[in-house]
Amino acid sequence: MTTLYSGERLTAIYHLTGNETEARAKAQDLTLEQTVELPDALVTDPTIRANIIGRIDELTPIASDLYSAEISFSVETIGDELTQLINVIFGNISIKPGIRLERIELPPSLLKIFHGPRFGRVGLREFLNVPERPLLCTALKPMGLSVEELADLAYQLALGGIDIIKDDHGLANQPFAPFEERVVRCAEAVARANQDCGGHSVYAPNITAPFPVILERARFAKQHGAGALLICPGITGLDTMRALADDDEIALPILSHPAFQGSYIADRTSGISHFCLFGQLNRLAGADAAIFPNAGGRFFFTKQDCRALVDGCSTNMGTIAPIFPTPAGGMGLQRVPEMRAMYGRDVILLVGGGLRSHSPDLVANCNFFRELAEKM
Amino acid sequence: MTTLYSGERLTAIYHLTGNETEARAKAQDLTLEQTVELPDALVTDPTIRANIIGRIDELTPIASDLYSAEISFSVETIGDELTQLINVIFGNISIKPGIRLERIELPPSLLKIFHGPRFGRVGLREFLNVPERPLLCTALKPMGLSVEELADLAYQLALGGIDIIKDDHGLANQPFAPFEERVVRCAEAVARANQDCGGHSVYAPNITAPFPVILERARFAKQHGAGALLICPGITGLDTMRALADDDEIALPILSHPAFQGSYIADRTSGISHFCLFGQLNRLAGADAAIFPNAGGRFFFTKQDCRALVDGCSTNMGTIAPIFPTPAGGMGLQRVPEMRAMYGRDVILLVGGGLRSHSPDLVANCNFFRELAEKM
Repeated sequence: MTTLYSGERLTAIYHLTGNETEARAKAQDLTLEQTVELPDALVTDPTIRANIIGRIDELTPIASDLYSAEISFSVETIGDELTQLINVIFGNISIKPGIRLERIELPPSLLKIFHGPRFGRVGLREFLNVPERPLLCTALKPMGLSVEELADLAYQLALGGIDIIKDDHGLANQPFAPFEERVVRCAEAVARANQDCGGHSVYAPNITAPFPVILERARFAKQHGAGALLICPGITGLDTMRALADDDEIALPILSHPAFQGSYIADRTSGISHFCLFGQLNRLAGADAAIFPNAGGRFFFTKQDCRALVDGCSTNMGTIAPIFPTPAGGMGLQRVPEMRAMYGRDVILLVGGGLRSHSPDLVANCNFFRELAEKM
Repeated sequence: MTTLYSGERLTAIYHLTGNETEARAKAQDLTLEQTVELPDALVTDPTIRANIIGRIDELTPIASDLYSAEISFSVETIGDELTQLINVIFGNISIKPGIRLERIELPPSLLKIFHGPRFGRVGLREFLNVPERPLLCTALKPMGLSVEELADLAYQLALGGIDIIKDDHGLANQPFAPFEERVVRCAEAVARANQDCGGHSVYAPNITAPFPVILERARFAKQHGAGALLICPGITGLDTMRALADDDEIALPILSHPAFQGSYIADRTSGISHFCLFGQLNRLAGADAAIFPNAGGRFFFTKQDCRALVDGCSTNMGTIAPIFPTPAGGMGLQRVPEMRAMYGRDVILLVGGGLRSHSPDLVANCNFFRELAEKM
């Protein structure tokens, strides 16, 4: 039966709290917990011992009472599925304290299975006809507006040259702006504005939706002129996003929104790193852009968190393309120069309410946003 | 447009850290963040102010620097979808510190939309033909066993009278035990044992799987004799589980496994309470049993956590039936009397490795497990 095992391994890097003895015990526990779920003494089969139980490849002190553990697993524990990959790297172990998933490294055989983003940075720039400058994004809000009001807003934002006009992620299928009607009217409004001003704006409806209708909504959006999709993989599951990215009929850029994922990064000594969750896992699961709350906005990410996330969006993952970090969360136009300086040009700048409050002339505000973004 | 709003509201109860001023600021922020995502001053439409922004119905001190906030939202913010319900009660706010979702209260109009568990406690007892005693459950493990070995194990466990023989949640579709072959052989083995001993055991395969194939796997399992299903809603998304529970063709009991959900309960001052996450949300999303790590096992739940979880499994939720708490996670047979005393009879006792290590005679161990569980 050993021929089942290729010898190829994936590696997950964890930070473990405790002194060396404690950290080693955690690492050893992890090798069992994420695979056989039995005490070591009960695993007698030599093939299983050699090929299923995880292996501690390195355990290094990195700070006082903090260790970095590189633990590798046979690719065969995964069975080619993202759901099981998530389970092996952070399933049960999410329930134990003092273990933080920092980074993953996948071998070629797994990278071949996960296609990652359909567009990535290069593809999205081509798709949106924006070769160099930062991309501009805003949100249709607030929840409660009618379809007519949202479409009017979308028209003006497109006239102002915003590249991606997305639904607020709280727009689902509510009675005040039902999904299908909203998509038809907002996509039409953006197309009309593009014609009127020669622009290339796209509308990105929120397709975070119940399991049985999500594919249907994505297809409806595509057929009715949406130019991108917004989804919250924390709510739908990461593999749902992956399936949408892999769907050749849908074939639209995907913006990943962090709603319901905050608990993974709430505690510095457990959960998942910003690098891995918003960068690596978003990419594996097909996102072209990772929306996140910028440092100094309504949320509490630090600059260091944001930089780590940006690294996760672009770190080498073989065939998995880099994606756009998309800082957001209460950014006003006055902060654009600072964001431009911090993130460089490979960024999607997402300004929501701040774009609306700058002056009463929304189109002028959009133009000003673009000028700020273009300045180096 | 006011006719769109019924006046019915759902309520979410949060624990907020800080002094009264800080807690009130958090509560106010929450009413905006979970709905309009705009600063209060930018929301000028009176209909939206009255119907969309959340409302602080109560703010009560419960400990030093800890407040309980009851915040209600119009049912229209939900649009009848579990995905958007999750978003409204804990989407963006999951990213802010010092806010813990403790409990939800849904009005009749929402409870009517979510059917909850198909079986619940009463239905599962009927289905398994176990009117009174605690139900017995175990797991096929370790990962790495062949289909033949798993089926042999399943046969013996069924012969020993274990009510539910589930896959370990790490069994997916790996080369050593591919899903379809495993389901066919294990279901057949359990059926044969039932015939041989006049039992009623069921086999519950793990259907945690990629989005495009999960429904297919559940149907395959049903068609080939599986008697229940195991799923990790933290990985697939809660609504995926709900869709499976609502599927009249599948119509099997569902065991919910907590893999990848640990981060929601890692920090006592953020995330989601055990009561709400494993109790209320599991029920809303159609689970018949909530698997969780028992106090004093391989994980770190306290007795208080476990009791809160049990409460969440049975608290009045209108038409949503109570479900079985299913303590697990490194329980040996010697702990069954204590679990019996703590959980009473309305429990599924899940003993995995402990059942195997008790003595070399697995069938005898199963019988002993049952005797212990039947004793009051």
